[in-house]
Amino acid sequence: MTPPAPVSIHPVPGLPEVRPGDDRGALLAGALAGLPLPLRDGDVVVVAQKVVSKAEGSRVALSAVEPSPAARQWGEAWDKDPRQVEVVLRESRRIVRMERGVIIAETRHGFVCANAGVDLSNSGGEELAILLPEDPDRSAAALRARLGRGSGEGGRDAEIAVIVADTFGRPWRVGLTQVALGVAGLEPLLDLRDSPDVDGRTLHATLIAVADELASAADLVCGKTSRVPAAVVRGYPYRPAGGSGRALIRAAEMDLFR
Amino acid sequence: MTPPAPVSIHPVPGLPEVRPGDDRGALLAGALAGLPLPLRDGDVVVVAQKVVSKAEGSRVALSAVEPSPAARQWGEAWDKDPRQVEVVLRESRRIVRMERGVIIAETRHGFVCANAGVDLSNSGGEELAILLPEDPDRSAAALRARLGRGSGEGGRDAEIAVIVADTFGRPWRVGLTQVALGVAGLEPLLDLRDSPDVDGRTLHATLIAVADELASAADLVCGKTSRVPAAVVRGYPYRPAGGSGRALIRAAEMDLFR
Repeated sequence: MTPPAPVSIHPVPGLPEVRPGDDRGALLAGALAGLPLPLRDGDVVVVAQKVVSKAEGSRVALSAVEPSPAARQWGEAWDKDPRQVEVVLRESRRIVRMERGVIIAETRHGFVCANAGVDLSNSGGEELAILLPEDPDRSAAALRARLGRGSGEGGRDAEIAVIVADTFGRPWRVGLTQVALGVAGLEPLLDLRDSPDVDGRTLHATLIAVADELASAADLVCGKTSRVPAAVVRGYPYRPAGGSGRALIRAAEMDLFR
Repeated sequence: MTPPAPVSIHPVPGLPEVRPGDDRGALLAGALAGLPLPLRDGDVVVVAQKVVSKAEGSRVALSAVEPSPAARQWGEAWDKDPRQVEVVLRESRRIVRMERGVIIAETRHGFVCANAGVDLSNSGGEELAILLPEDPDRSAAALRARLGRGSGEGGRDAEIAVIVADTFGRPWRVGLTQVALGVAGLEPLLDLRDSPDVDGRTLHATLIAVADELASAADLVCGKTSRVPAAVVRGYPYRPAGGSGRALIRAAEMDLFR
């Protein structure tokens, strides 16, 4: 059996810091400038959620937020900005845990994560809450269409996939890992359940979250403090598909932990 | 700021299928044969738990297991081999959930995972339960010492790190991702909590589980069905340290989900 070829992960430098008021076009222009061109068919471009949200205007100025009494109380008890708490509650479809200063929430999309994915940012003295993209799959699809256009060998279109990713915590283990929120162009799950393993024994329940593993791999070159909010994963033989990050969300009724 | 350099992930082919009776020496000889030699200082060798366990003899012949009444009952109710269920219960320090045919257990080491990490394997007609390594950090340290010896440029020793990894599920999301059980030679967590972000705002609670991200990246070249149970991640600027997979286990009292 031929072993898989090496996979490489290329940082996308030069992506300018996205400011409120920038549009998605500016993001795309910046990303295009930093891509390791020409792109190859099969490249996976992983883009950090935060720059996508900023470019799409998924943000709220904290100065415009009036916290509810509940948000105010929680903020005072746990030394959090009550306006941020208010935004977190608004972005939540359901609170999974709200204990010891930690809010684990299910977002409108169905993601379960700390603070409903709401980050704080400070731009030109304005305090902003950065929300998750409204529809991460749509964001990924738009980026896929644009980034692939004319960026292949000899100026032809490149058949690429795009993942919009964010770093999430998880129960039982310390630290964040990057996961896929939006997916376009690849099958996010690799189903090995029906493949015999090397002993000839049928594997069961072996469903690999490859989109999350790709997102984590990309994070290795995307330091949080450097201006590298995107990466290209090259050489991974994914299965082409429409793809959706929703396939990675465990249905509530199948989840023993909410 | 100079962007990080590319990271590459190299499959380690030629690692022979480890059989019961093989010793760790055979595993090492096989791994050495498949490594992309010479190794470079800073390489991270990620080895699948299953081959480490087989080589170390962390296994139980199912034919020798007498299931308890509880294991028998659970096995009958959910169509599981009661002998496997018995081994899972013996390997568990605590059962976190036991519902709908799924056993989520805390292992003796403190890992929380399905079936206490117990896999089934069939070798030469003998049905085996493969357990997690007794001490994954010790396994990683032993592999690190041996694999680095003489495998650098010009036959000198290479300063490498080793991760012993397994694919675990997680709440809220579908599919498995590979995580680090044992770590030797690198700091498994990257603490960005005190670094200012690009806006100059201090990040808080940004602790990245880089050892898990390295393990997930390695899984991209380690198909479950191919004989590629190890990979070398090259070019990731980890922080050298003794390292331990225990640092990635969330303390029970800090965990809202057990």
